[in-house]
Amino acid sequence: MSAEPKYLTGNGQGIKEFIDKFDTFLFDCDGVLWSGDHVYEGVPETLELLRSKGKRTVFVTNNSTKSRQDYVKKLANMGIECTPDDVFGSSYSASIYISRILKLPEGKNKVFAIGEAGMEQELASEGVPFIGGTDPAMRRDVTPEDFAGLADGSLLDPEVGVVLCGLDFHINYLKLIHGLHYLRKGALFLATNLDSTLPMHKDLFLGAGSIVIPLTNAIGREPLALGKPSQAMMDAVEGKFQLDRARTCMVGDRLNTDIKFGVEGKLGGTLHVLTGVNSKEDWQKKDAIAVPSFYADKLSDLRDCA
Amino acid sequence: MSAEPKYLTGNGQGIKEFIDKFDTFLFDCDGVLWSGDHVYEGVPETLELLRSKGKRTVFVTNNSTKSRQDYVKKLANMGIECTPDDVFGSSYSASIYISRILKLPEGKNKVFAIGEAGMEQELASEGVPFIGGTDPAMRRDVTPEDFAGLADGSLLDPEVGVVLCGLDFHINYLKLIHGLHYLRKGALFLATNLDSTLPMHKDLFLGAGSIVIPLTNAIGREPLALGKPSQAMMDAVEGKFQLDRARTCMVGDRLNTDIKFGVEGKLGGTLHVLTGVNSKEDWQKKDAIAVPSFYADKLSDLRDCA
Repeated sequence: MSAEPKYLTGNGQGIKEFIDKFDTFLFDCDGVLWSGDHVYEGVPETLELLRSKGKRTVFVTNNSTKSRQDYVKKLANMGIECTPDDVFGSSYSASIYISRILKLPEGKNKVFAIGEAGMEQELASEGVPFIGGTDPAMRRDVTPEDFAGLADGSLLDPEVGVVLCGLDFHINYLKLIHGLHYLRKGALFLATNLDSTLPMHKDLFLGAGSIVIPLTNAIGREPLALGKPSQAMMDAVEGKFQLDRARTCMVGDRLNTDIKFGVEGKLGGTLHVLTGVNSKEDWQKKDAIAVPSFYADKLSDLRDCA
Repeated sequence: MSAEPKYLTGNGQGIKEFIDKFDTFLFDCDGVLWSGDHVYEGVPETLELLRSKGKRTVFVTNNSTKSRQDYVKKLANMGIECTPDDVFGSSYSASIYISRILKLPEGKNKVFAIGEAGMEQELASEGVPFIGGTDPAMRRDVTPEDFAGLADGSLLDPEVGVVLCGLDFHINYLKLIHGLHYLRKGALFLATNLDSTLPMHKDLFLGAGSIVIPLTNAIGREPLALGKPSQAMMDAVEGKFQLDRARTCMVGDRLNTDIKFGVEGKLGGTLHVLTGVNSKEDWQKKDAIAVPSFYADKLSDLRDCA
């Protein structure tokens, strides 16, 4: 069904035409710009080149523990200058979704947050009231009074209308049963993203999807995810940047998140770079989860634009 | 396919024949013997009557946080005298399974336990070595050194051959990523039970199934469950009591745990009492999850045995 992806590496005229097709490039980070703490050669210069041609560059990440400001610092350490407005993380995505799309009524617009400081910063940046998060009062053992107070509702804040769950390194039984009870009272169920694992130290730990799943299991309904490949994130990106989707390209290394995100979002194009998780063979398979419209050996090959 | 269940209430001769068919009765507790802290009228006397006829009475519970000794106390508070040998909980079931069925080799027979003191007591009662559990060293925040030490394996005990997860009110990220890494190293994956919720205060909290599911999600494989309706529990019950299944009856209030457990275990019979979760209509439905062979309004109706 899809046309064969166009190979850009070494194809100067093809790269020029590719760049001319788009006004905005959305970049996944790990596996595209860098691996771990090592930035790929030529990446900062490639981003500079695109900007010099008047293109907007946006960094789109599922990491819910870091705020946009945190990411600006991380990118600066890699030699990539940008502002918070160039970054779109899953906690920010969730905050945008809550403040600009849900528009909850006063008195029912508070978020019960399961997540780290980056999530709190993003909720605050959008003026979304929240409880939970890094509150030390929630970082303790559950007591008999907690069970009783949740059962009779006396411990629940009646203004909570949303449970938002992301990666929380301080997850505990107390936070989870608060989340469960707000959901049972009818709160909307949101997750920053559903990645089951977190890559670190060339190994895998627990991702946000494995922190939210106790709630999903106990309540018997799925959260709406605000990270890639969820189209709720694309809606939030579009809402913020007032994108022309036809003139936007998603650049990534993973078919099941990045390329799927761009294809299902009906963007003008998707570019698969071969510096990360997936290889050419993954989309050449008959049952490929998503097929890009362009591919290149590495991002910095775009510098060769005749 | 199944014959119509036989109704015992008020049927003295039927009750006599029912009792004569069995040597051993396995009892679910909540909804059969009591509700919350309130024992049903006539239950202690009914159990006494069965024992006076030479029947063995065994209490089978999915609660993984209590040891058999804890249950003896709870039963005594309800006016039911018994010894630890009359109780079969899911942590004990798991311990029996590990010690008597798995029989792991020395040097690879340690359990990484996620659970409360009741689980530790049961592992100890079977002489199974374990780490984790209520160890205060695991009840703390994760550190960068934990991530590094799990990634390079230096924090892992090479003797761990099993990850056993039950209900843990002190669950945290540190315990979960230890469990994940032992599983990635090839440890067997066991769960005391998979109940998604925990009934308390006429309300629902998180059950053992919602504590283990982050591991299931991150590792991509299911644990073997040792609680009802898992037949691994039935094997453990049979192993301990040297039961004749044909002369054993499971008594319960829930079709999806108790009655299913007995039917799939090919016991001589199952008795559904109508004092708990399920009603007659639930097994009269065409797609009933399990159909009992006997039913009665309440357990104490068995006293009317002509």
